[in-house]
Order: sequence, then structure tokens, then C-alpha cells
Amino acid sequence: MEKKDLLKQVIKHIDIKSFDASPIINSMREMSFSSRETANAADIFNMMIAEKGCTNILTIAGSTSAAGCMQVYVDLIKHNMIDAVVSTGASIVDMDFFEALGYKHYRGTQFIDDKFLRDNYVDRIYDTYIDEEELQACDSTIKIIADSLEPRPYSSREFIYEMGKYLSENSVKKESLIQTCYEHNVPIFVPAFSDCSAGFGLVMHQVERMKEGKPYLTIDSVADFRELTDIKIAAKTTGLFMIGGGVPKNFAQDTVVCAECLGIDASMHKYAVLITVADVRDGACSSSTLKEASSWGKVDTVYEQMVYAEATTVLPLIASYVFHKGDWKNREPKNWTKIFQK
Amino acid sequence: MEKKDLLKQVIKHIDIKSFDASPIINSMREMSFSSRETANAADIFNMMIAEKGCTNILTIAGSTSAAGCMQVYVDLIKHNMIDAVVSTGASIVDMDFFEALGYKHYRGTQFIDDKFLRDNYVDRIYDTYIDEEELQACDSTIKIIADSLEPRPYSSREFIYEMGKYLSENSVKKESLIQTCYEHNVPIFVPAFSDCSAGFGLVMHQVERMKEGKPYLTIDSVADFRELTDIKIAAKTTGLFMIGGGVPKNFAQDTVVCAECLGIDASMHKYAVLITVADVRDGACSSSTLKEASSWGKVDTVYEQMVYAEATTVLPLIASYVFHKGDWKNREPKNWTKIFQK
Amino acid sequence: MEKKDLLKQVIKHIDIKSFDASPIINSMREMSFSSRETANAADIFNMMIAEKGCTNILTIAGSTSAAGCMQVYVDLIKHNMIDAVVSTGASIVDMDFFEALGYKHYRGTQFIDDKFLRDNYVDRIYDTYIDEEELQACDSTIKIIADSLEPRPYSSREFIYEMGKYLSENSVKKESLIQTCYEHNVPIFVPAFSDCSAGFGLVMHQVERMKEGKPYLTIDSVADFRELTDIKIAAKTTGLFMIGGGVPKNFAQDTVVCAECLGIDASMHKYAVLITVADVRDGACSSSTLKEASSWGKVDTVYEQMVYAEATTVLPLIASYVFHKGDWKNREPKNWTKIFQK
Amino acid sequence: MEKKDLLKQVIKHIDIKSFDASPIINSMREMSFSSRETANAADIFNMMIAEKGCTNILTIAGSTSAAGCMQVYVDLIKHNMIDAVVSTGASIVDMDFFEALGYKHYRGTQFIDDKFLRDNYVDRIYDTYIDEEELQACDSTIKIIADSLEPRPYSSREFIYEMGKYLSENSVKKESLIQTCYEHNVPIFVPAFSDCSAGFGLVMHQVERMKEGKPYLTIDSVADFRELTDIKIAAKTTGLFMIGGGVPKNFAQDTVVCAECLGIDASMHKYAVLITVADVRDGACSSSTLKEASSWGKVDTVYEQMVYAEATTVLPLIASYVFHKGDWKNREPKNWTKIFQK
Repeated sequence: MEKKDLLKQVIKHIDIKSFDASPIINSMREMSFSSRETANAADIFNMMIAEKGCTNILTIAGSTSAAGCMQVYVDLIKHNMIDAVVSTGASIVDMDFFEALGYKHYRGTQFIDDKFLRDNYVDRIYDTYIDEEELQACDSTIKIIADSLEPRPYSSREFIYEMGKYLSENSVKKESLIQTCYEHNVPIFVPAFSDCSAGFGLVMHQVERMKEGKPYLTIDSVADFRELTDIKIAAKTTGLFMIGGGVPKNFAQDTVVCAECLGIDASMHKYAVLITVADVRDGACSSSTLKEASSWGKVDTVYEQMVYAEATTVLPLIASYVFHKGDWKNREPKNWTKIFQK
Repeated sequence: MEKKDLLKQVIKHIDIKSFDASPIINSMREMSFSSRETANAADIFNMMIAEKGCTNILTIAGSTSAAGCMQVYVDLIKHNMIDAVVSTGASIVDMDFFEALGYKHYRGTQFIDDKFLRDNYVDRIYDTYIDEEELQACDSTIKIIADSLEPRPYSSREFIYEMGKYLSENSVKKESLIQTCYEHNVPIFVPAFSDCSAGFGLVMHQVERMKEGKPYLTIDSVADFRELTDIKIAAKTTGLFMIGGGVPKNFAQDTVVCAECLGIDASMHKYAVLITVADVRDGACSSSTLKEASSWGKVDTVYEQMVYAEATTVLPLIASYVFHKGDWKNREPKNWTKIFQK
Repeated sequence: MEKKDLLKQVIKHIDIKSFDASPIINSMREMSFSSRETANAADIFNMMIAEKGCTNILTIAGSTSAAGCMQVYVDLIKHNMIDAVVSTGASIVDMDFFEALGYKHYRGTQFIDDKFLRDNYVDRIYDTYIDEEELQACDSTIKIIADSLEPRPYSSREFIYEMGKYLSENSVKKESLIQTCYEHNVPIFVPAFSDCSAGFGLVMHQVERMKEGKPYLTIDSVADFRELTDIKIAAKTTGLFMIGGGVPKNFAQDTVVCAECLGIDASMHKYAVLITVADVRDGACSSSTLKEASSWGKVDTVYEQMVYAEATTVLPLIASYVFHKGDWKNREPKNWTKIFQK
Repeated sequence: MEKKDLLKQVIKHIDIKSFDASPIINSMREMSFSSRETANAADIFNMMIAEKGCTNILTIAGSTSAAGCMQVYVDLIKHNMIDAVVSTGASIVDMDFFEALGYKHYRGTQFIDDKFLRDNYVDRIYDTYIDEEELQACDSTIKIIADSLEPRPYSSREFIYEMGKYLSENSVKKESLIQTCYEHNVPIFVPAFSDCSAGFGLVMHQVERMKEGKPYLTIDSVADFRELTDIKIAAKTTGLFMIGGGVPKNFAQDTVVCAECLGIDASMHKYAVLITVADVRDGACSSSTLKEASSWGKVDTVYEQMVYAEATTVLPLIASYVFHKGDWKNREPKNWTKIFQK
């Protein structure tokens, strides 16, 4: 077996518009266990969409973008269901930006010798393969963007906005999440921005500039938190649609508390949906329940639903349901990007 | 809140015929993680159905029948996709027989004080409620059937056949799994038959007869194993479609080894699908992988797929897919019940 | 690599008497998460031991006996901490009886090609190996015992008592769980007795006798339930110490309800400890919480503790703690085996 | 019940020096499942300690510090077993810095109404309580430190160093992780530094300065990655001891790849231990296996061990074992903090 045999079967991203999951969700609503949780999650997400004035924040952790859900997120943005995104770096840079540059993810298997993959420069995410040589193009493009910008502290949102601008001129795959968000004025935050392929490019940028004795760009993670809190304060009513836990989940939840620290009485997130397989019992934030979050004053408990499922199985059902329900057609775009452009 | 408020929202069982999950499964085939596993499981189950001469064994553990999947299993039998069933007692007696007698399961919540439920004689399965007083009717009907039979050792299959006969005359809900299997000559095995509502009825039968000094009926679990092995030997090619692990999974897998013990060279189960959330790491059979089973000579590893999901979310998709694919239309019924009627 | 290389590193069973885990448990009592759960479980188990008149039932599912905890269970019996055992067949027959006949379990790895194991007749349980040819000696010894007995229905308890008698004359390893229980009048119940190596031996027995037109022994699983309920009724106060879930857990819990069916007002199990990695969310009994069980009237909720851990890590700590605490020294043996010998 | 009743039972941190877990680890080495994994993890951690020249990186995610393991980490630093720390913000700021200021964590329960906790300003982590009013002192102290520093970009390491300096003068509890690391020249990195209580203080600092039209301090997450990579490059041989996954795990692993991006041929991490309950199947980094990491060229696969356990149960055993083994007595301190003080 050679490298090209490993990288043959391209991941195709599911199109929630091409099928209508409504009859399935409608049945699941009258069942039990995770199926009812899935239906409740779909109902709460739709309430978020239908409520006039509610700002909807999507948080992404895990590798669902590589695993075939990339277009789901794009469709949520395009159809005006989401107003801000908080994500891990991998989902935004290594996966979405990577495909925007024309590269692909491949169907593989977890039952393989990882040394063989290593020898072929093939990276593995569970049962999915990536060509590491292609991923390096991602790192170097980040460096090119960093090199082109004024050397000062940026929030990740500002930097990702510049990535969107870059893609609007240079993308191979036109409909990436970054570019779609750029075009729809939906800000993307990556609170741990150097923990991904972007980190490699930005370290290269800084090291080169240091050698040259020149000033360099930095990424101020405090600015991210400040800006997302600005949105929370301006938005008033908010809902969270969370795929996986991690830093994005905690970060988005914490904006309520941060607003309070600034002396502003922000309401708790009114709606919250969380899809995760994380285990609640280790006290980690990825897995902490929405009820636990309410003890911290972050999330209200009236409209909250956790779905204990690997997201690729239930997210397409939920997203297809809300898409076909069509309440998004009456929504006004929030254009939160614009509040940072004054 | 009173008891009647707890028992208001009836569980409705999903109808896999009423929607076509094919476009979803077809998309999932080109994705990753549990969605691809789900599609592969659907493909393998369809191969089992399409292969001429293959006997398909359904194993059931967990409470999917109470949770809204009861009709899924009935449809698999009615449409000739399954030739034998191995199950826990709860799924067959407490859930299926219970509903056949006219009772219902109810949508509840896991966020409730269990003492309050106890005081109201409401039993809980995760987020599902049962009226305990109704469940007692189940126990006593089992006793009535036992009292009516010749006092000798029965396999669980024989006894469940008598339950089917009883239902064909007395059922309130006509299309139960037990009655459907009875009518389609599909045997049902419950290897731990006294570990459910049936146990209560049968203990009452035995104790009453003992007090009267009369002979009583017994349930011979060895006979179950012997009879299922007879089917494995007669069937030659076999496939397993397993929902949950537990005793049913191990029991069905072990027939290969049992045939060998009898000096007959039986082939391993050619196909195997397992849907489970069990954790592989405790060495329990519920969770042991199909690859591990192959080390024991039970399951071949060419066509096997584990899906790590709570079954109510993915089973409806898989079953709807194979139903609409329609390969079952060309299958001959195996009528395995008849080999025990000589 | 040859078969003998696979079967080199013998599993040695941990000796809870050889170290004192008290300082660790005492520290864990003031910590959080699973460590505090572990300490609470140890405290409740010790309360069961210290309470005059309380009958303690040990339930075993999973493969902890193969994995190095076999001597833990023996020590609990020898030191009079347990009065009845309910187990899966594998733990009692394939593991304990197997080692009593002189065979061993071996340390292996889960990272191996299972086809290679299959070719060498090596069976795998997660990271543990068994010589399949040795396991067949287990099956045939069961047949020898069955052949030697009067052909009538037996409870599994009765049959396992005969296995104890056999071992008291023929065992290679003297201190097996079966033999120790036999000698200490502690009954062992295996509600799904044919779902293990015993099933192979008993099917061989039945098939041979049928061919010869002779009567044969049967295993009446109803009798198991009846007898365990007899103990529950006679014992009045009871506590459950449960390693894994499965049929044993449900079976032991259900005796309360069964007593009620017989018109006897039995108290709920007063104490309950459960160590498991099972996921509560699929509604399976293995994973259903002790609080859920209380809605069914099975388990009281004052002294109950679930420990979400793979048992080999925490069971040795708990058992060492109660051993060194020494409250068992003041216990009267219950000798429940004797109530079936009238 | 009042607030003071909720906050009565203080968490006490386990002291690995006060008991010797060696006999337990030595037994577990010859068992199976998670117990053997635990022993192997202890052995690999000890190899890291014993190997001359190996730099040992501790990564922390989850809430083990709040749950009673805080002193474990301090003891690893004090006894020269760890040379760098990468952590989530919560473990360092909300937990360790919080206790250093004189506050406590409390033993609570997950079976409580979170609205009641909210009304009492009590925050919950699974079964652990925190007084939210005390936590605000943590936020404001961070602001005080930020206000006192020159307004420029800082790596989290630099800022935490200043926190150590602050504690060396102002701490109530003397032996915090931050202060101990400060005194032993062990750098601490928190790649998502604003995702915790520090974020609140830093946002307050920035907003106040912005209102005043003054320059403010920023946290450059790129600098963290650059600096940790500097250590990886200088250290050559490295080992990872990872408690939980999350950003810290990925961040530490990625330094190998980052070094390559800078044109330096760094070796993979030679040793890796990971203790986690995360589920591998969602493709998230928290749960991705060490073998998967090797496909990315991050971790070598000769000496790696994953332990699937909630860390509070097994970490004390492992740490006590290596402490009593004593190989740390022959180690030279690495003093990595000093390379940033040129």
C-alpha cells in the first residue's frame, strides 16, 4: 500500500438541505433516551431561531468539520441561524481553512499501524486521514497573512476576519465557514488560537521578525474575551448551540459572568443545547452539565438540553429539521462583526 | 402533582416505513466517526438480508423497546428480515408483552425525586415511566399461562411460544413482537428468562404448586442454548444484528463454539453488527468488540461493524434504510420455529 | 511469535491482606469525584459488615476475576464478609472453576491481530489471554459432573454446590471461589447459567442423553430466583455489593419485588454499592442508577453509592480497607446454603 | 439550609508522601485492565524521572486540583520530577491561585438543585462547591497584578511568573503550585489564559485602561507556543505526564511539529502517559489516543500508556509510587524558567 492508496476516498460533507429530517425528529419527540433528547435539542434550537432579537452563538469543539459536518455549519450561517461562532483552532484553521485552500479530508480507518501512517506523512483523526504535506501549506499561508498585517496585538476574531478577506480573493473552495462568516458579518472567535495550525504559522512569523529585529503581530486572547462579552452585552437575549465542550463552551458561557465583572447586569444565556460524548464525572468543563453551569449563573435551566451522542449522527438531523422548519426566513441578521468596525 | 400527571405522555413507537432514511445513510457513508459506522452497519445488515440462505439473528438488550423502538423490531419480523430473536427478559416480557396486554410506557424525566415516584408506584427507566400496578398484571398473566401448561421443563423459547398463542387469542394491542414472531414462525429465546417480570409469575406458579404438593413447570436454560445451537447448525450461514450487549449477545455468539463442542464444524457468524454505548475497557461481554469475539472463533471479521451510539438515535435510520432498500422482498422465510415442532 | 510466547506472563491475583489501603481511603474521603465515591463505597460496605444481622450479597459481572481480582472475592468469603454470591457464568465457570482445575490467565495486549490469536487457539478478554484448549477441559468437566448427577431440574445454586463438592476432591488450585463458598456455606447463583462454559458441557450432556434416549439434567432458572428470594425473606436486612451490572445486579435487586409477589412484605435492600463503567443513558440495567432502582422499590437510597470506575483499580482499595478495619471479625456466619439442605 | 451549611466540609488534598502505594502498584503490574494500565503508567513516569537529561512536562486539564490532588502536583514540583507545566486556566487560577489567597474548596453533592446553589452564590464542579464571592477576589487580584505591570504583550508564562512573585509576598497558603513553580524555576503555560478567572481580571484591566485612554497589557498566546517550543528544542529528550486532555495536551504534543516548522529536527516526545475518561470516538483531541498522536509525529509509541480512569482514583497511586521509588533524588533541576530571563 502506498500513500496514494491511503488518500483515495474523499470525505463528502452532508447537505442538510437535500433531505428533510422532520418526520424523524417529530417521531423522536415521542420516544425516549437520546432520541427524545435529540428532538428536544432541535426544538430548543428552533426556539432560539424563532425568538425575535435572540443572538445565537455556535460553539465547536472536536473534529466534526473534518468528519463531514463542515457544510452544516456553513448552511447555518448562510441561512441566518447563527450570529457568532466560538471554536477550537483545529476546526477553523486545520479543517475549514485547509479545505478552503483546496485540500481534502479522507476516509480512513482506526485499525491501522500509526507508524505506517507516520512514514507516509499521513495524519489520522480517529478514522479520518489528512495529508501532512498539504497541512503545511495551511501553516505557511497563515504566516503570509500575518506578514502582511500591521504588527500589533489582534484578537483571534480580527485575525480570522483577515483570513476571510484573504479567502474572498484566493480561496479554491468558495464556500468555507470562514469566508461565509466574513461575508455575512458573523464573527468567529478562537480563544486558544495558537493551539492549531495557525500557531505554527504565527510562531514562524514571530521568530523570523525577532531575528530581523522587527516588530511582530501578537494574538491577544484577552481581547477575544472582551469582544465576545461586548456582543453578549449588546445582544441581551442569547442562546448557545454547542457541538462538543472544551474551551469554546466555557468561553461562551463565561461571557455572562464577565459582563457582571464589568458592572453590567447581563442575563444568563436563555437557551442552551450541548451535543457531547464527554463524561460528566471528571469535573472537566467539556462535560459539565448545563444544570451545573446554572449554579455559576451562566445558563438558565428552562430551555436547556444535553444530547449524549457523537455529533455526526444527530447534528445532521437537528440542522435539517430547523432548516426545513424555515423560521430562519423571518430573522434579521445581527451583523455583529460591524460593532468592531466603528 | 399526582400519579395521573406523571403518566400522561404516552411513548409512541417510531414507524420506519413512514419516512425514508436512505438519503441520510447514503450521506453518512461518505462521512466519518459514528455516522460512517452507522452507514456501514446499515450496509452490512442489508448484505445479511440480501444473501440467499443467510439466517439473521436479532439480539436485544437494554430498553429500546420501552423507549420507542418496539415497532421497529416488529417491522423487521413482519418484513422477513429476521429469523430468530435472542433477548433479555425485560424487552420481551416487561415491555412487549406488557404493551400487548394493553398497557403503555410514558415519557418522563430523569430529573425527579425517585422517592416521589416510589410513593406513586411509578417505575422509572432513565426518562421513561411505567405504572407498577399495571406491570403486576403482566406477572399474573405469566402465572396464568404457566398454570395452564403441562408441568415439565420448557426452554424459554417454548414458553414464549405459548405466550404468543395466548396473545393471538387475548391481546389488546395486536401487533406485539411476541405475537408477530409467533405468527411468522420466528423463535424468541430469553436465556435469563427469570430475570424479568416472567420470573415473578413463574416463582408464584412454583411456590403455589409446591404448597399444594403438585408438580410444576421449570425453565431449562440449557435447552435454550441447545435449541439455538440447533438453528446455528441447520442455518449454516448466519448474521447477527445486535442491539446492546449483555447475555443475548454472548449467547448468540457462543452457538458457534457450542456446535464445535457437539463435533460439528460450524462456520463463524459471517456478519455482525453491534450498536452499543458499553465501554470496552472493563472486559465485560456487553462491550467486548467483535474483533475480540473473533479471537474466540465466534464472529468473522470481514463484515462486522460496531456503532458506538445509544440505539434509539441510529437504529431507526438503519432499519428505515434497509426497509426502503427492499431486498427483503426476495427473501424466503426460514420458519425456524418449525424445527422444534417435529 | 508462537503460542507459548503469547502465554508466558501469568496473571497474579492481588492479595488485599498484603497491604493496607486505609490511609488512601481515609484521604479519598475528603477529596471529590470518583475518589470520594470510592471512599463512600468502602464506608457503606463496612457498615454492611458491621450491622448485626445484615445479609451481604456480592454480585459479579464483567471479567475482574480473570483480571487479577479472583483472590479478592475469595478473601471476602473466607473472612465472612459475604453471605451469598450472584454472578455471571463466565466469572464462576470460565474463570474461577478454570483456575481451580489448574489453568491460568495470561497478561496480553489489546493491540494484536485477533486472527493471529484465533489461529493459535488463544482467546482474548481485552488485554488478557486464555488458552482455548485448556478452556475445553472446563466444558468437559462440567459434563462429567452433570453425568454423575440424578437427572432432574437443578437450580444453578444446586449445580454449583456440586461443582464445589467436585473441587473439594479434585481441585488443583485449592482456594477457588467455588470451593471456598462450598466450604463456608455461601450459596452461589448464576441466573444465566448456560451462558458460559457450563452451557457447553450441559448441552453435551443433554444431547448425549437424548441420543441414548435417557433422562437428563436441566437447569431451572426459576428455582434460582425462588431460592434467592427465600434468602431475602429469611434475611430481612440485606446489603448489595455489586461489581458490574448485568443480570446479577438486576436479579439480586428484584428479590424484593419477588417477595412482595409472594405476599411477603420484604424491606428494600438497605445498603447498595455499585462499581461500574456502564453508561446510564441507554436505559440498560447494567447502568441504571441505584436511585432509579429505588423507584422500583428495590434499593433504599439512604446508604447507596455508585463508583464510576473500572473495578480492578478501586475494588482492591475498598476490599483492603474493610479487611484491615476488621469489623468482619465480629460477624456470625449466615450459612445460607443450609436452608436448602432441609 | 443556608449557605454556611453548604460550605462546611473542606476538601483536603491528598499527601502522596504519607502512604506508600508501591505494594499496590507492584500487584497491579501483574493484573489486567485499568489496574495494569495504572502500573504501566507509573513505570513509564518513573522511567522519565530516571532518564538523565529528560525534560518532563506535566499537563493538567479537568478539575483534579479542586478535587483533592492539588498537593500532588506541588509535590511533583518540589521533588524535582517535573520541569514544565501546561494547564487549563481553571486549574491554575480558579483553583490553585484561589487557595493560595486563602480560600477553600468544599465537598458537596451533584444531587442538588442548582438554582438553590445559584441563589446562594455557590458554584458547583460535579460534587464540589466554591463560594462565588471568594472567587471574585481571585478576579480582582489578577487585575491588581495586571495594573502593576508594564503594558505590553505577555506570554501566559510571563504573567503567571508575576503571579508567583505576587504570592511569594502575599500568599496565605504558602505552598501553592504557582509559588512552588516560581521558586523552583518551573515555567507554567496556560495556552487559553483568558478562559478562566484570569480572563475576568484582565478584561477589567483592559476596559478600565481603554476608558482612560491608556495602554494596556495583552496576553500573546503565540508567545506561549513559541516559548514552549524553545524548551522542547533545548531539552531534546522529553516526556509528557498528562492528566486529562484538552488544549494543554495538544499544545504540549504540538511543540515537536512546531520545532520542525522552525527548521529544527526535534525528536518526538519519548515518553507519554495520559490519564483520561474522554471517549476516543468523537475525534476530539482530549480523547485522541497516543497512537493516533504518533501518526502526527508528536509522540513516540514505545513508552506510552493511556489510563482510562477518573484521575483522582489513580493519580495518587502513581505519584506515591514514584515518590517512594526515589529516583527523583538523583535528578538535576532543569530550571527552564531561566532561559527566558536572559
